[in-house]
Amino acid sequence: MEQCPKTNTTLRLPVARVPPFEGSKKVYLPSKIHPGMRIPMREVLLSAEAAHEAPVRLYDASGPYTDTVMVTDIERGLYPLRREWLLKRKADARPTQLYYARQGVVTEEMEFVAIREGLEAEFVRAEVAAGRAIIPANIHHPECEPMVIGRNFLVKINANIGNSAMRSTVAEEIEKMLWSIRWGADTVMDLSTGKNIHETREKIIRNCPTPIGTVPIYQALEKVGGKVEALSWEVYRETLIEQCEQGVDYFTVHAGVLKEFVPLAKKRMTGIVSRGGSILAKWMHFHNKENFLYTHFEEICKILAQYDVAFSLGDGLRPGSTHDANDAAQFGELKVLGELTKIAWKHDVQVMIEGPGHVPLNKIKENMDLQMTLCHEAPFYTLGPLVIDVGAGHDHLTSAIGGAMIGWLGTAMLCYVTPKEHLALPDKNDVKEGIIAHKIAALAADLAKGHPMAVRWNDAMSKARFEFRWEDQYRLSLDPELARRYREAAFPKDATSNRCCTMCGPDFCAMKITQEI
Amino acid sequence: MEQCPKTNTTLRLPVARVPPFEGSKKVYLPSKIHPGMRIPMREVLLSAEAAHEAPVRLYDASGPYTDTVMVTDIERGLYPLRREWLLKRKADARPTQLYYARQGVVTEEMEFVAIREGLEAEFVRAEVAAGRAIIPANIHHPECEPMVIGRNFLVKINANIGNSAMRSTVAEEIEKMLWSIRWGADTVMDLSTGKNIHETREKIIRNCPTPIGTVPIYQALEKVGGKVEALSWEVYRETLIEQCEQGVDYFTVHAGVLKEFVPLAKKRMTGIVSRGGSILAKWMHFHNKENFLYTHFEEICKILAQYDVAFSLGDGLRPGSTHDANDAAQFGELKVLGELTKIAWKHDVQVMIEGPGHVPLNKIKENMDLQMTLCHEAPFYTLGPLVIDVGAGHDHLTSAIGGAMIGWLGTAMLCYVTPKEHLALPDKNDVKEGIIAHKIAALAADLAKGHPMAVRWNDAMSKARFEFRWEDQYRLSLDPELARRYREAAFPKDATSNRCCTMCGPDFCAMKITQEI
Repeated sequence: MEQCPKTNTTLRLPVARVPPFEGSKKVYLPSKIHPGMRIPMREVLLSAEAAHEAPVRLYDASGPYTDTVMVTDIERGLYPLRREWLLKRKADARPTQLYYARQGVVTEEMEFVAIREGLEAEFVRAEVAAGRAIIPANIHHPECEPMVIGRNFLVKINANIGNSAMRSTVAEEIEKMLWSIRWGADTVMDLSTGKNIHETREKIIRNCPTPIGTVPIYQALEKVGGKVEALSWEVYRETLIEQCEQGVDYFTVHAGVLKEFVPLAKKRMTGIVSRGGSILAKWMHFHNKENFLYTHFEEICKILAQYDVAFSLGDGLRPGSTHDANDAAQFGELKVLGELTKIAWKHDVQVMIEGPGHVPLNKIKENMDLQMTLCHEAPFYTLGPLVIDVGAGHDHLTSAIGGAMIGWLGTAMLCYVTPKEHLALPDKNDVKEGIIAHKIAALAADLAKGHPMAVRWNDAMSKARFEFRWEDQYRLSLDPELARRYREAAFPKDATSNRCCTMCGPDFCAMKITQEI
Repeated sequence: MEQCPKTNTTLRLPVARVPPFEGSKKVYLPSKIHPGMRIPMREVLLSAEAAHEAPVRLYDASGPYTDTVMVTDIERGLYPLRREWLLKRKADARPTQLYYARQGVVTEEMEFVAIREGLEAEFVRAEVAAGRAIIPANIHHPECEPMVIGRNFLVKINANIGNSAMRSTVAEEIEKMLWSIRWGADTVMDLSTGKNIHETREKIIRNCPTPIGTVPIYQALEKVGGKVEALSWEVYRETLIEQCEQGVDYFTVHAGVLKEFVPLAKKRMTGIVSRGGSILAKWMHFHNKENFLYTHFEEICKILAQYDVAFSLGDGLRPGSTHDANDAAQFGELKVLGELTKIAWKHDVQVMIEGPGHVPLNKIKENMDLQMTLCHEAPFYTLGPLVIDVGAGHDHLTSAIGGAMIGWLGTAMLCYVTPKEHLALPDKNDVKEGIIAHKIAALAADLAKGHPMAVRWNDAMSKARFEFRWEDQYRLSLDPELARRYREAAFPKDATSNRCCTMCGPDFCAMKITQEI
């Protein structure tokens, strides 16, 4: 297993660094319209054998940690690159990206993400204005490198971290966050439900260059001692504001789990499998009242608008088995999420919609099509979907299959699933496996959609393969160290053997034979 | 890593046994029309907690090794269950399943596969007669448990084994074969290119309960000292007959790589990546003659018809990168394979068609649609397709994504790809990872197509999950031991903790909360 970057929190100025992948270095592109702004990219330098090839520039979500010149300090947090941009906007009542986009303003954030993705800033603005894309970036998270979630951009992936009542410390969570962005997570959700939720989150946000998402009802529930019936709008509201102030960039809010849907979910094979969904169902059952997130939705919008926190409208009724996919409970909730989207947009609050879950391959397209129609093209953010139920121990894979398919069809972000899904909390190796599986799914979707960055990356690899440039193949792999280790363990490094691989040996190498013709 | 069954070849009567998965046992179903024939199935017994649930019967390709009563002996080989069926047919000149199906005869093999899949024997006969399905079963492989490959049946997977000039012994290959069928390989291809090809294959065939496939040109090339230009129809013909006599069930024959296609392939980013394809391209280039497999195709058919060896018409020009997918070289060859299919059928020889390779998600459907049309619905057997090029070290996953999709669209069998693809020969753990990834892909396709056996299996798992029957979840997983290990390492076994999992802990378990409502 790979070494994790160490975060030494005993020093006064601890240095946390995630070394760049071998053969890659961090470069910065200049802004065209915002002086001084610089946009980080990963540049894969090719070997001397490929002197004629330009370096391959890739999207880079790993933050300042992979900059070998910059010094990072977990105690102090990252450099607040957005601070000055935000200062200018202080007077605005609704300083959201959606608000500015609708005003025709190209913000620094919009140009930043445009350059990252190789697109025009005006295109980004128009997508955000239409609600087809969001840039989750709380005004209190100035350390965040802006990124965009929308179906006309690279497909993003989210990694979940977070302690639970059962395990883990602040240092461990920071380490998981660093590890996640090292392997390519585009956003990180802190799903902590245990002790020290506030302190853990503070350290994570101050040190995280990607947007942070949370599910505020988890902390609200901790505040009332875990008693679902004791939850109230007041406790929830206080929690929301606390997290807005800290700098959380998007909130999962299960406002679509209405009372009328609970009987539908009770008929299912696997009931409700969303934590948030089940908490609200229990609360409604106990109080015989409508979901307080639904009844107070406009008030939530007003709070989020002040900080530019985006909604991730939660699918509390997502199916927990392929059997329950695409049922009345699920699609009933989806319709409500579409209605709530319109309300949020009225308040200039950015919105994405969460999706399933467990869905067989033949029912994936219906999910995407309905979401697009019912939710007015707001970005879709799915968990998988897992395409079978019997893959326990390998569910990162069952999820990557569904994720690739739904990503291609238009889903903007995939939430990762690790090999331990359904069984236990992931360890570091599981986090890595989960991220790589979903990076593959996302990249498969990008390539199928023809994103030029994905095409260039894949083509550079194929060319290196045909030309037997092994060093370049390692550098261009999703996991350079692993690719090198696999080959070098099997095959000694020398000039002759470089012209073939161990799979076929020197006499049976198809590419070598082709080149001889 | 799991223990592999040991094959002790130093004893006179060595016992090779692959223990059944925990909680599973081998059962046999009776024939309705062929007295004495019994069809093996895997029965998953559920725990005492599920007293009301019937055992779940699953397809079982693992052969007599998982029968705890039977004694197997690598020296002697498996019991020849088909011997008597074959004796009755001795006088027939073309004793192929296609011949019998066309005559309206339901053979033992047809009924065997029908019962395995829970279908009617007559349906199997009709599918074979139409060329939509094949039952690869050489009359000299009486040890083979018949299985069917066709799009109206369960999607099958193939595992490749085989030594190379660089590595591996007979005992290791036997071990790999046993290991492959233990994890669910439906057929095994012996791709040996090193020494002792004949002896290795003999031991494999005598001990393998699944069909065995080969690529005869590899051995032919060994016979001429690895010199491509020295290959000839005579050497190839002699090799074919040798392998037919031994009992190989299907041959990859690259008869569609025509001279006119080579210039098209030379224009590609990654040329020719099929070993067989490149050998034939080189041979044609040297001799300036048409592919001898094409010019002697009818003679090949006549040989195969005598033994009921099926064609796996090789895609020598499959794309080796997503860049080259669906190009003129690939589809030119596919059209020729369709023409050859008709010729083979004229000789009552069964045919399946090999497919790519490297194909982005958006180009997969065109492959399936064209294959169906150009090859007259003969079964499609694909390698992946891999949906991106940069997954080195994780290509079992890039392949499973494409495999799931093309399987759902109608591909009948998926050739596995292991994590070492493009880098090195797989070890045992890679073989297991490759098989499980492609079992997941195949099962995802089966479920999407609504195969009742896949639906029952997934539903049984989901029900066990909702009812917190952990023992049953392990038993119903693709990898029971791994699922148990993951959970039990994280969570002590006791009555209370059984009602939740470590992911959410006892207070946040959505399913538990749902059940309390």
